[in-house]
Amino acid sequence: MDIAQQITQLAVKAREASRAMAKVDSERKNRVLYSMAKMLRENIARVQAENEKDLKAAAEQGLSAAFIDRLTLSDKVIESMAAGLEEVARLPDPVGEVTRMWKRPNGLQVGKMRIPLGVIGMIYESRPNVTIDAGSLCLKSGNAVLLRGGKEAINSNLALAAIMQQALETENIPAAAVQVIPMTDRAAVMEMLKLNDYIDVIIPRGGESLIKTVYENSKIPVIAHYKGVCHVYIDASADYAMAEKIALNAKVQRPGVCNAMETLLVHKKFADKHMAGLMESFRKAQVSLKGCGQTRALDASVAEATEQDWYEEYLDLVLAVKVVEDMDEALDHIARYGSKHTEAIVTQDYDNARRFLAEADSSVVLVNASTRFNDGGQLGLGAEIGISTCKLHSFGPMGLEELTTTKFIVYGDGQVRQ
Amino acid sequence: MDIAQQITQLAVKAREASRAMAKVDSERKNRVLYSMAKMLRENIARVQAENEKDLKAAAEQGLSAAFIDRLTLSDKVIESMAAGLEEVARLPDPVGEVTRMWKRPNGLQVGKMRIPLGVIGMIYESRPNVTIDAGSLCLKSGNAVLLRGGKEAINSNLALAAIMQQALETENIPAAAVQVIPMTDRAAVMEMLKLNDYIDVIIPRGGESLIKTVYENSKIPVIAHYKGVCHVYIDASADYAMAEKIALNAKVQRPGVCNAMETLLVHKKFADKHMAGLMESFRKAQVSLKGCGQTRALDASVAEATEQDWYEEYLDLVLAVKVVEDMDEALDHIARYGSKHTEAIVTQDYDNARRFLAEADSSVVLVNASTRFNDGGQLGLGAEIGISTCKLHSFGPMGLEELTTTKFIVYGDGQVRQ
Repeated sequence: MDIAQQITQLAVKAREASRAMAKVDSERKNRVLYSMAKMLRENIARVQAENEKDLKAAAEQGLSAAFIDRLTLSDKVIESMAAGLEEVARLPDPVGEVTRMWKRPNGLQVGKMRIPLGVIGMIYESRPNVTIDAGSLCLKSGNAVLLRGGKEAINSNLALAAIMQQALETENIPAAAVQVIPMTDRAAVMEMLKLNDYIDVIIPRGGESLIKTVYENSKIPVIAHYKGVCHVYIDASADYAMAEKIALNAKVQRPGVCNAMETLLVHKKFADKHMAGLMESFRKAQVSLKGCGQTRALDASVAEATEQDWYEEYLDLVLAVKVVEDMDEALDHIARYGSKHTEAIVTQDYDNARRFLAEADSSVVLVNASTRFNDGGQLGLGAEIGISTCKLHSFGPMGLEELTTTKFIVYGDGQVRQ
Repeated sequence: MDIAQQITQLAVKAREASRAMAKVDSERKNRVLYSMAKMLRENIARVQAENEKDLKAAAEQGLSAAFIDRLTLSDKVIESMAAGLEEVARLPDPVGEVTRMWKRPNGLQVGKMRIPLGVIGMIYESRPNVTIDAGSLCLKSGNAVLLRGGKEAINSNLALAAIMQQALETENIPAAAVQVIPMTDRAAVMEMLKLNDYIDVIIPRGGESLIKTVYENSKIPVIAHYKGVCHVYIDASADYAMAEKIALNAKVQRPGVCNAMETLLVHKKFADKHMAGLMESFRKAQVSLKGCGQTRALDASVAEATEQDWYEEYLDLVLAVKVVEDMDEALDHIARYGSKHTEAIVTQDYDNARRFLAEADSSVVLVNASTRFNDGGQLGLGAEIGISTCKLHSFGPMGLEELTTTKFIVYGDGQVRQ
């Protein structure tokens, strides 16, 4: 069998398993998730032995310490994976929920019922915990999943999948409901992306180049997270203490993540009074500052921002700062340079709060709160499989509900069309 | 400018217009829709003169009478288009609706707000009324739309678009919110399908080969309607009169449309008693019958069905009939040969009704009602832009809501991440 045939065979099995999965009731799904957690704890040595192979290979290839850190399945990491499985078991099951029901003049009762999407294809880079996270969320939402992790984590991922499959089998659910693709070459991904007859959606998680490759080669719809060029706009009416607290939190609490602020927009009235103080606070927090001409006129030690800086996702302690004439200019700036990820306004003005919420075209828009809240857990979705910056199907953090779709159900008593 | 540049220019203008459209309030949108209806009625002679050019060309090319009929903008057709515009004006505006709101332990109020998708690309065949239908639905849902109709209707479509644009301008909304692509060659479609930076979703409407071409060449997500291989399953417990009424309606009321029944599945207990009578009723309604071995054993004048018949979308007075052992076999048949469009069960059994609703994996699943109800108007969506047989984003009839997505909105009072 060539690689195309092998991948197709896995996908066909996933499709078959998805039909069985769609029918599994919540209690059985939860039992499987608890078994997975138990088996993961019991088989910690086996998982770590496989992880050791990956770690050794990574060290031989001279991969970075940060990379090796993300790859390592320490006792603590495994315990948090097991706890995550139990947490997913406790979340409400979205499948079968009737979200709305109405009655037609002819007596038909029409409703919308949540159903699984079918087969999810996950393509991700090297953190092996994604194998468990994605596996458990797809399972709970009644989907089958084909997992294609990074080649550097292949032994770890296969060990984790084996445990999940063992737990599925204790409940007589087809093991193919959760499969790790064992082929690690790029050709396997390319073949996977052609299988639109068997895979319903591809969710890639990783750097920009992975996302781009997936997007450009996929015949299957892709729900992806592109960049997080997030903005905080400080309005003329903002309270200084609140503005400073939110802007600092958005930048420095964890600068390397997608929901961290990259550009600060400051209304000129606020800037005239507070820019120097605000910049000083950022400097104390070790943030390198790049500003527009007006920012630099107010604080000469800010470096000069170039046009490119407004597009930049620094993911680091670097901040671009721009003074704007009014909220229109702030909204225009966001529309032009933003990435539809997260925007926050700090304001005491009722109309501006309302207008910013309506007009900022991003997956999460906040008033008087940090951009760092764009996260499934923080917003109350329970867990997230990723954040979508595409509008189709799902926009923003994706939890269990976002792994489902709805069909129409109709109760009649003999109605026909006239 | 070459064709790629021309199409890109139209799409860039659509993208700009979409930002303006998203902000237009319901009253202004409704005024525009009523103006469109008024202007359409006032300019009937102008529209019909342009339509005449298309009709003349069609006659010269020897196109079929049915084709020319669909292309003709009679007084009656134009009046129904104008009435359709007024109907869309009366539908509720989905944009800005907060579908749900909840509170987090830290006091954040989190909600989901409906927003437009952005720019919709419609690709369709020759009925010029789609230009008005799609234009009005996209407008009401706050989107900009790029319309690419069939080349045989180009003069009609341009005349209709001119009227819609005139109405937009009376409310100072950019005319580019509704554009008909004036280039009629296939290359224009291919270029359009590459513009994922400017177009958010492609909705093709037409025959299987159009859908396939669009799907295979699009870099933009596609929401499409494939085939309608719809089933009626008559359960053992079904009432004969109701089963006959529903099955006949599903097949003969309008056989040429996607929600007509193509295959009838009959429980063997019901078949033993009623097959001959039922087949006789279909024959009286001029339906050609093709059956499985068991069907033919019960009614020798039914022709033999081949494996291919179970996949067939006849769109005609032809019906495939199969006797099944039980509901499992019916559901297996639907899963194997169906097209995820519409399935109905006729039953008096509570458990079977419930199970069929849950397990039949189609966009609309009905109990004791005709498959012909899979239609936006019939199900109460007000109007439809099409029916999706793909699960992502929208599954089933698509109304105004399905032309929107949701973003998260968050009200805080200074919250930051710990």
